[in-house]
Amino acid sequence: MDKLRLGIIGIGNIGTGHTSNILEGQCPGIRITAAADRRESRRSWIHEQLPDIPVFSEGEELIASGTCDAVLICVPHYQHPPLAISAMRHGLHVLVEKPAGVYTLQVREMNEEADRHPELAFGLMYNQRTNCVYRKLKEMIDGGELGTLKRVSWLITDWYRTQQYYDSGAWRATWAGEGGGVLLNQCPHQLDLLQWLCGLPVRVRAFCHEGKWHDIEVEDDVTAYLEYENGATGVFVSTTGDAPGTNRLEITGTRGKVICERNKLTFSRLAVDERVWCRTSPDAYMKPECETFEVETDGLNPQHSGVLNAFADHILHGGPMIADGREGIRGLMLSNAMHLSSWLGKPVDLPFDEVLFRDLLMERCRHSRHKKEVDVTYNMIGSY
Amino acid sequence: MDKLRLGIIGIGNIGTGHTSNILEGQCPGIRITAAADRRESRRSWIHEQLPDIPVFSEGEELIASGTCDAVLICVPHYQHPPLAISAMRHGLHVLVEKPAGVYTLQVREMNEEADRHPELAFGLMYNQRTNCVYRKLKEMIDGGELGTLKRVSWLITDWYRTQQYYDSGAWRATWAGEGGGVLLNQCPHQLDLLQWLCGLPVRVRAFCHEGKWHDIEVEDDVTAYLEYENGATGVFVSTTGDAPGTNRLEITGTRGKVICERNKLTFSRLAVDERVWCRTSPDAYMKPECETFEVETDGLNPQHSGVLNAFADHILHGGPMIADGREGIRGLMLSNAMHLSSWLGKPVDLPFDEVLFRDLLMERCRHSRHKKEVDVTYNMIGSY
Repeated sequence: MDKLRLGIIGIGNIGTGHTSNILEGQCPGIRITAAADRRESRRSWIHEQLPDIPVFSEGEELIASGTCDAVLICVPHYQHPPLAISAMRHGLHVLVEKPAGVYTLQVREMNEEADRHPELAFGLMYNQRTNCVYRKLKEMIDGGELGTLKRVSWLITDWYRTQQYYDSGAWRATWAGEGGGVLLNQCPHQLDLLQWLCGLPVRVRAFCHEGKWHDIEVEDDVTAYLEYENGATGVFVSTTGDAPGTNRLEITGTRGKVICERNKLTFSRLAVDERVWCRTSPDAYMKPECETFEVETDGLNPQHSGVLNAFADHILHGGPMIADGREGIRGLMLSNAMHLSSWLGKPVDLPFDEVLFRDLLMERCRHSRHKKEVDVTYNMIGSY
Repeated sequence: MDKLRLGIIGIGNIGTGHTSNILEGQCPGIRITAAADRRESRRSWIHEQLPDIPVFSEGEELIASGTCDAVLICVPHYQHPPLAISAMRHGLHVLVEKPAGVYTLQVREMNEEADRHPELAFGLMYNQRTNCVYRKLKEMIDGGELGTLKRVSWLITDWYRTQQYYDSGAWRATWAGEGGGVLLNQCPHQLDLLQWLCGLPVRVRAFCHEGKWHDIEVEDDVTAYLEYENGATGVFVSTTGDAPGTNRLEITGTRGKVICERNKLTFSRLAVDERVWCRTSPDAYMKPECETFEVETDGLNPQHSGVLNAFADHILHGGPMIADGREGIRGLMLSNAMHLSSWLGKPVDLPFDEVLFRDLLMERCRHSRHKKEVDVTYNMIGSY
């Protein structure tokens, strides 16, 4: 195999972006050999782009067609696990768009299926992990440069969306269609990065506000407080209602503080571990000596194409993927725990009661508001 | 009267700073005519500075001495209201160091006494209100430049203190001596500014960690979530355990966002109110047009001397004070609500049960740890 034969399931907003990237030559190891979408308009579009490939209405038809080595799943979130499981059972490698799914129980099934197919690649489209700034930060933390985690704060309020956005898709921002709001649609990247960088907290208390800034039934404003096993604490704030919004991640460890903002990493490095200093300093107010500087990175940020290329390279040549699919459940645990805490009005310990979460979610789905069908497609690559 | 005759009660850390400022000529309308401190070492110090003034052991003696027109109260927090009340009953103008007191019930008594003496000046040492940056911000908010409040976030984690600091005074960081930790000692300025700028929230959920970074019985790490009457939310994070720490205030309104950091105000001003834009924009992702710039201020930041001079000018010539003493209760309500929420493990609505708060605090005082007497004095002016 010199090129991976890829089937794209779901040629909606993000699927359109992936298709365009590949057609523009950004993924030399990949050839699109099939596509599927339930909408006639999207099938017509892909047929115009690639007249020679089979185009299906259903992902399951594509999976059974024998035309691909791998599938890229870009359909609404609820369908990620069942399609991934089916693809694996047909011997196909699988790359899933974020989030891994809507609730952890269904994602556990997907992960278990993946474990039964160690010969298959299973990846998650965590394109933000390819950003040089986050990669460098991960390297610094893992290398001990920040010492032990004390505090993390992420204000990620620059996911602005207008009412028009929410009116553009019947599945959007409904419990039945999407299973949540800003936590499920916009935040999965940051929730993954947060757990990737700092690990999972052991306790979450969140305050989700539903339909606060938009006429929708799910949350569009979230503030969450996190506690980690070592006592470190965190704050995570997100919304689709703020303009111009902020994206500022600050992580404090015992050996310094790093701020990630505007794609720059600023490190304040202490000469002495603060915990040692606190106990031994004869001065009451003085801080340890500190040097602040911008951290250099390799400047590379290949995003979606980077994930696709690593996925193909992994299958073709055994290279490393950007994110193993099994890790998708971790960010979703954070997201589910935030929802659950807000619904119950109290802190939630991790691991939480996943059956209770699913039941409460399904209850919401039963009362989910019907939205009229619309058929609008955006190329969203730029907005991620 | 051409100069205000001021008695200083408490020549400890901050009292020493005030005395030095006045002796250095920063307060031309004020003459120190008496002082009081329970410690012989501090009485000796003031006697060296001002050999001709009477020096008392007890504030009550100073108040009864007839040597002053006004008193500046710089003793441990619990004693602020009783001394202020006594001074007012003796016909003295009163300026109280922050916080107004330790619990709101005692501060209400002080405010009620003040209401019985409309002829007397009653002020709070909220020196941060003199900072040009906060004054300008207040002016912008009150002038409607930010529109309606949507979100506020204050990371104020640069109150670093070593263990030595806490070991330097027997009253420090004990329930009986100080009534709290970082919320009572370091944060009163920010809690006042927060309510001054954004108003009081209607609901608070806080997470206070006691003795987390230091060997003390009170909180040295706080994360609080706030909800305002109009639905706006906020986050307030503080600690004495972080180095180098952060002081970053971000306020988002419907017409823009302002960031206050490193004594600079950065305003992102929207061309259109976001709430109108959200409902009417035909685009899904685009934000309203936005212009970002640094806001000019008058550059003045007279701090403690500014409060003292305004207080004297108010008495001598009828000018405005920086902060009316009656406003001191508002920041304390925030502080008490944060403690209460953390103690109860649930959200607290404002106004909260002030009797319950006092009872829970007194319970803590009864079990308060005895610390050995020490006698260390810092000139803390620089650290505020």
